[in-house]
Amino acid sequence: MKSEAAYNDLLKRSREVSLISSTTSLLGWDQETYMPEAGVDYRAEQMGYFAGLRHRIWTAPEVGDWIKSCEDAGLLNDAERGPNVRELRRDYDRAVKTPPDLVEELARVTTMAQQSWQEARKESKFGKFAPLLDKIIELTRRQADCWGWKESRYDALLDYYEPGATSTETAKLLGDLAGKLSALIPIFQKKFEKVPANRLKGNYAKAEQQAFNREVATAFGFDFAAGRIDASTHPFCSGVGPKDCRMTTRYDETDFTDSFFSVLHECGHGLYDQGLNTDHFGTPLGEAVSLGIHETQSRLWENQVGRSRAFWKHWLPLAGKHFPGLQKIGGDEFWLAINRVEPSFIRVDADEATYNLHIVLRFEMEKKLIEGELKTADLPAAWNARFEELFGLKVPDDARGCLQDIHWSGGGFGYFPTYTLGNLNAAQLYRAALKQNAGLQGELDRGAYGSLRQWLKTNVHQHGRRYLPRELMQKATGEPTRADYFIDYLKAKFDF
Amino acid sequence: MKSEAAYNDLLKRSREVSLISSTTSLLGWDQETYMPEAGVDYRAEQMGYFAGLRHRIWTAPEVGDWIKSCEDAGLLNDAERGPNVRELRRDYDRAVKTPPDLVEELARVTTMAQQSWQEARKESKFGKFAPLLDKIIELTRRQADCWGWKESRYDALLDYYEPGATSTETAKLLGDLAGKLSALIPIFQKKFEKVPANRLKGNYAKAEQQAFNREVATAFGFDFAAGRIDASTHPFCSGVGPKDCRMTTRYDETDFTDSFFSVLHECGHGLYDQGLNTDHFGTPLGEAVSLGIHETQSRLWENQVGRSRAFWKHWLPLAGKHFPGLQKIGGDEFWLAINRVEPSFIRVDADEATYNLHIVLRFEMEKKLIEGELKTADLPAAWNARFEELFGLKVPDDARGCLQDIHWSGGGFGYFPTYTLGNLNAAQLYRAALKQNAGLQGELDRGAYGSLRQWLKTNVHQHGRRYLPRELMQKATGEPTRADYFIDYLKAKFDF
Repeated sequence: MKSEAAYNDLLKRSREVSLISSTTSLLGWDQETYMPEAGVDYRAEQMGYFAGLRHRIWTAPEVGDWIKSCEDAGLLNDAERGPNVRELRRDYDRAVKTPPDLVEELARVTTMAQQSWQEARKESKFGKFAPLLDKIIELTRRQADCWGWKESRYDALLDYYEPGATSTETAKLLGDLAGKLSALIPIFQKKFEKVPANRLKGNYAKAEQQAFNREVATAFGFDFAAGRIDASTHPFCSGVGPKDCRMTTRYDETDFTDSFFSVLHECGHGLYDQGLNTDHFGTPLGEAVSLGIHETQSRLWENQVGRSRAFWKHWLPLAGKHFPGLQKIGGDEFWLAINRVEPSFIRVDADEATYNLHIVLRFEMEKKLIEGELKTADLPAAWNARFEELFGLKVPDDARGCLQDIHWSGGGFGYFPTYTLGNLNAAQLYRAALKQNAGLQGELDRGAYGSLRQWLKTNVHQHGRRYLPRELMQKATGEPTRADYFIDYLKAKFDF
Repeated sequence: MKSEAAYNDLLKRSREVSLISSTTSLLGWDQETYMPEAGVDYRAEQMGYFAGLRHRIWTAPEVGDWIKSCEDAGLLNDAERGPNVRELRRDYDRAVKTPPDLVEELARVTTMAQQSWQEARKESKFGKFAPLLDKIIELTRRQADCWGWKESRYDALLDYYEPGATSTETAKLLGDLAGKLSALIPIFQKKFEKVPANRLKGNYAKAEQQAFNREVATAFGFDFAAGRIDASTHPFCSGVGPKDCRMTTRYDETDFTDSFFSVLHECGHGLYDQGLNTDHFGTPLGEAVSLGIHETQSRLWENQVGRSRAFWKHWLPLAGKHFPGLQKIGGDEFWLAINRVEPSFIRVDADEATYNLHIVLRFEMEKKLIEGELKTADLPAAWNARFEELFGLKVPDDARGCLQDIHWSGGGFGYFPTYTLGNLNAAQLYRAALKQNAGLQGELDRGAYGSLRQWLKTNVHQHGRRYLPRELMQKATGEPTRADYFIDYLKAKFDF
């Protein structure tokens, strides 16, 4: 049958694209972890070359023909092949709308920009990074125009990370959430007034942090025969093969919680990656559905699990074996210290509540940068002004302001909102898991995570891109995404 | 001009091939250093894919046309473009004689075999590795037949690593050398009778080894902004970009000399890599000329420099700062301990004199395996019998016998003889450098290596593949390769 052959050819090409993508993932991982600094220029050439190659083989005319043959033969109605054809059509249409020279240029410029960003952040000099950022914004706007948009140029980018999401809807959702949070944060903050900010400062040897991080990641079910943890400036998680998942963290020997919670977070991503169906690797059914859903997994393990009282009742004595200084800190005191709600400068260090205000800020800034309402040179001033409105604090320098995140240097505009979508959906998924499993809380209390991991695997991981994010949430929780569960979760936790 | 365009297209394609090759070098480096074990199958697929891709774009008909246009236009007589065209013709002819399916299969099988070899070596079970080794030999024989040969199938492989070398000539050279060495080794060995084998056994913390290794590599002139040292089962050095050179070593905390001399060795390779002309990266003028010449650099820094009395007169007090146990060992005693001549099982641990007998053994074995005179299953018995003849020792197990080296698992037949060619040429180059630079020995005595490195850069590194190995030796030393200088060097050193 013609459609049978077309489908097989299509999947073969999809797997070929993945061979290249997974290799560029390794090139990217290496760049952030071990690559010597002088390697950056050639690495940019390599990234540019492979981005171009991938684009060339994926946008070849035969790919469009294969997809059309599959659609014409009604394969979209097939349970297994349907989602693959549907999602490959989405990817193909987006790809053919992007000119190859733009793909190569973006890959090259962002590789250089990431090095430049690291230096600029180190010296806290936005001016050092501004020219490359400006170039990236220009290229990203061109990209959005190629992809097409109706209301806002920013929509084209948002939909790339979160299929189906729009600026208007996201602006409304984040606006509402910001309103509710603004009212709640002062109430929460009061509860922590007597908890000193530096209660957990101490001496935490890097080797002991590594050992404890690994112990907990293993308990969560991360498979170290098929993954690892290394160090990088900004923690991330990258799947570089069907059985090869690389997490990173960073170490502060005066505060183990920095590496610890970033490992729990990346471990959530890693468990999603390791929970995908490896038989489908290189095709949509073997890929994560969206950044927002990916973020539900990291947030759930980091926050709902890792910052709960039950978690530390089990783990604090074990942490004390690695860090004797913790032995004299009581359970309540410790829990307060790691959950302390207080407006602060750095997004990745923010508590669960104020975190979302950081996202609101970034969403507003990047939307304006992309829509042309804000010039790159004016970013630090605009950032600092809006930060003061939202947080009541003056930004002391660019390193603690608009230079703190890696995302824009990599061209990741439209990415930030997925973090807060992740928070909302994580609360909703966690609630559903507990509701559907009577014994689950008891298991979590004992430090047993197999049932929770299995529930997430069954309801999220194993589907790959079978359902769009909103369908996935509907299937798993019985209703569409709502902000209420996240607000309820925060209230139950912080309004004690 | 037509030939001008053809030459430019040809160089562009050569650089594209290098983009792919350098990426597979990184994939290979990662596999040996950081890749989690479950990643091996997919890594094999990646390696196979890129080997096939590289082969496809390099054997495309237009490449042959470009080379012919350049040749027809007389570019071979051009000082700059001539060597590039000549060497690209050599590479092209060899590549078009290899069927793509064979390239992909060899890449895939050798990637799996390297994992299998590691396990087999660990358990000292040749049988575990034998099926994949047998498959590699079968594929390598097919490869040799495709490349073509006259006297011996093995010639096709040898010429790949050392352009111009032949089995007959190499057998004669190694045979002569083995004869002379057999007479000298008992004399040398006597000098070390009173030096206990374990004189330097002690406690050498890994972190201190790393610091000392780095100190010496920096003094040699290795640029750590453009390179690094990691750990792997078998030390190696791999250029993964024009300014990105990765060395590896392994650590034994009871004996710092294991990691130390392997770093000096790999550093010699690294200095060659860093001494190449980066403007020519991705073209023959920017590539190392042969494995044998590469090995002159590693051996010269490891042995002629690093095992000399002058070297340790300078470095022993500094080593003592890292390893206090060394402080009570005298200079003569230390020098005797690191130069101890004694037949032993492991090639990479062998002294400078007996080392070459290990190569004679491997050369004989692999020549027979390739020529079909020895079956894979019979290798351990043949190895052990010949080892006893050459060394007077019974091989206790396969891990200390035919399983000790990584080379065959990677398909590297014809590779081993280049080590001894390296030894001969290293002695000849070192002698020429000292003869041509009156003040050089004085600098080396002071731990200053800039002049030696510069001499090697000028006479070896910067030429890339401009000259064939034998021409390069003629230019640098004024005469063709001779074994005498190596024998003279050993006599002067060990017949004290």
